Amino acid sequence: MQDIPAAVREMAHDAREASRFVAAATTERKNQVLRDTARRIQENRELLREANRKDLEAAGEKGLPAAMLDRLTLSDKVMDQMCRSLEEVASLPDPVGEIVRMWKRPNGLMVGKMRIPLGVVGIIYEARPNVTVDAAALCLKSGNAVLLRGGSEAIRSNQALAELLSRACSDQGLPEQAVQLIRTTDRAAVLELLKQEEFIDVIIPRGGEPLIRFVAENSRIPVIKHYKGVCHVYVDQGADPEMAVRICVNAKTQRPGVCNAMETLLVHEAEARVLLPRLAAALQAKGVEIRGCPATLRLVPFARTAREEDWGTEYLDLILSVKVVAGLEEAIDHIHRYGSLHTESIVTRDYERAQRFLRQVESSTVLVNASTRFSDGFELGLGAEIGISTTKLHAYGPMGLEELTTTKFIVYGNGQVRE
Amino acid sequence: MQDIPAAVREMAHDAREASRFVAAATTERKNQVLRDTARRIQENRELLREANRKDLEAAGEKGLPAAMLDRLTLSDKVMDQMCRSLEEVASLPDPVGEIVRMWKRPNGLMVGKMRIPLGVVGIIYEARPNVTVDAAALCLKSGNAVLLRGGSEAIRSNQALAELLSRACSDQGLPEQAVQLIRTTDRAAVLELLKQEEFIDVIIPRGGEPLIRFVAENSRIPVIKHYKGVCHVYVDQGADPEMAVRICVNAKTQRPGVCNAMETLLVHEAEARVLLPRLAAALQAKGVEIRGCPATLRLVPFARTAREEDWGTEYLDLILSVKVVAGLEEAIDHIHRYGSLHTESIVTRDYERAQRFLRQVESSTVLVNASTRFSDGFELGLGAEIGISTTKLHAYGPMGLEELTTTKFIVYGNGQVRE
Repeated sequence: MQDIPAAVREMAHDAREASRFVAAATTERKNQVLRDTARRIQENRELLREANRKDLEAAGEKGLPAAMLDRLTLSDKVMDQMCRSLEEVASLPDPVGEIVRMWKRPNGLMVGKMRIPLGVVGIIYEARPNVTVDAAALCLKSGNAVLLRGGSEAIRSNQALAELLSRACSDQGLPEQAVQLIRTTDRAAVLELLKQEEFIDVIIPRGGEPLIRFVAENSRIPVIKHYKGVCHVYVDQGADPEMAVRICVNAKTQRPGVCNAMETLLVHEAEARVLLPRLAAALQAKGVEIRGCPATLRLVPFARTAREEDWGTEYLDLILSVKVVAGLEEAIDHIHRYGSLHTESIVTRDYERAQRFLRQVESSTVLVNASTRFSDGFELGLGAEIGISTTKLHAYGPMGLEELTTTKFIVYGNGQVRE
Repeated sequence: MQDIPAAVREMAHDAREASRFVAAATTERKNQVLRDTARRIQENRELLREANRKDLEAAGEKGLPAAMLDRLTLSDKVMDQMCRSLEEVASLPDPVGEIVRMWKRPNGLMVGKMRIPLGVVGIIYEARPNVTVDAAALCLKSGNAVLLRGGSEAIRSNQALAELLSRACSDQGLPEQAVQLIRTTDRAAVLELLKQEEFIDVIIPRGGEPLIRFVAENSRIPVIKHYKGVCHVYVDQGADPEMAVRICVNAKTQRPGVCNAMETLLVHEAEARVLLPRLAAALQAKGVEIRGCPATLRLVPFARTAREEDWGTEYLDLILSVKVVAGLEEAIDHIHRYGSLHTESIVTRDYERAQRFLRQVESSTVLVNASTRFSDGFELGLGAEIGISTTKLHAYGPMGLEELTTTKFIVYGNGQVRE
């Protein structure tokens, strides 16, 4: 049995050293690593399938549920998707070295902010082996070294994929330690990883709320996280009924199991009598169970009673809580009280209330007349998504390549000294 | 004896509630609060002097050193400076509500990033009572509520100042809890404050390294910090000797006790024989003690031997470590190994090496042909400075009003749903 904390410390130290070379790598070289990895995945399908088969066997013996076995499976489709995603990341603009802004001081100094990598990113995730490739690709493209710790169920698949990434790095003249996977399933390794603040700049956990809470509570390194998405749609007085139905049905039912699906519908009392039965019928037709406030219950006979805890619940399922509100202020107050700072949308025809909703709702994504389902890095145009942050420091909302960088001040002088 | 943890939790909760109103306040109203505070300071000079006198008496009885008594004193000059600084912050542009960028998606969605306040900022600082006013002004202007915890020596002065700030808030229709000072000197209050991650968004410690380490090690809330500034100047082959002398003397001696003063000089070996004796003589004339590498010792007879620990030391004094290096690569390696990610400068006439230094040195401020002393929020043109960060997340380098904000995504649609 090796000394796990010492091994993790060494990996973190090596990642820090490797990060200098990744940070200095040209765009072309980083893209080559990504394309080379895609090629290797194509060439090593049988090897990957074999590693994955062992993971699936072990998982089957442990009696893991079918949904988890499905997420764990490296099918041809999943491998194709990984290769496409590597190609997509390679085709994105390189954020490193971008001059975000530049200005001139009265003494002639030219001051600018230059985008640079964060350094070393730690990713802690659960059962999907494709995260190994997707997350590593984004970290490398943004000039970072990456330390990966995947779910123990996927350990053999992850090792095989990380190996291909490391080899692609070294073949392109980058240190193979630019991508490292923690190869033990012992939880002590995660705890040690979370102490390496000297070497790791940020930890991004990806998974369910228990994983994220565990990471947040045990990390000395800054963690970018979101626990859950209790997303609201507020249908305003005078809203276009067609649009309200279209947006609400999409926000709730297009993919109910994800964090940007609507969980609570707020309806202005002036619209409730006519619109709410119609909305409820459209949602019921898609199999949605309605849990309503007393006013909702009077208008929607098939609704069940919403209890206090319903308002803060992320169902991730075909269930919706519904509340009739007196107006915009009450809607905003409700969101402030029960929301999760994730995503909220207003359906309105009123210019001033649209602007007030955008300004006063402090969630990380606020929409007017659009489905909450657009709160996603790809949909918003970031090109990719490494995660979503519902804490305000560093990044807030969907995170793309830029959020894996920071900026430093650069100053061009011609001999200036301070008086 | 009151229950300190409960009292701190209540303050943090109240700050969170107050933060909504500060976030929604107009620029005009926030500026009125700052100008009203300045007026109140002018009108209450006697009261402030009296509170400060008690602090000074208590500090004198405890035998505090003269330098600390000096920092603690609310002289007329310090009060004037606080009023000027309030006026200056009032005259700065309001970052809140700024649209940082906006773009259009193929489906017609207009996606933008809007600047919003962080929410609640906790400031933990040491003996200077003017920080109470300066930090609160920056937090309020950027739309944040602020929780202050100053040094115990300044408790009466800080209370009197915080009282004026709170009254200015409530007079302008903002909650008086927008500015709160922790009124106990018990350390348990700080420990409890650092646990309020539900209510406080960021902690900014201002003070010496022991304070900052204590805060960083005990906080569950993200901390923006810098421990020290071991700043380097690298004098390149072919550098203008006049400029090299001017910049080095300024960087070391203009104010040696601050974090952006030069602590280590690196000189290219091709320049060392002629330039180093001249540089050393100019520095010696200003009273600087030189601690050199073996090559330095051969060229500068009055230099003492630099020991290994000198290279990582922030002297904050008229002491300088000097090393002769073989070229740019060795200089960058030295900075990587011993630097503190604060500020480094190159003196050069070579275009390509200037660009490489800017690109490859990962410190938060990197200068070409200018004194390290410009690494400061005012000098770089941020208009103000709440602190300096040498960790990369959220802010890196001097922090102004913008760094007290974050951005949320705003989306203007016209009925879009996701396919």
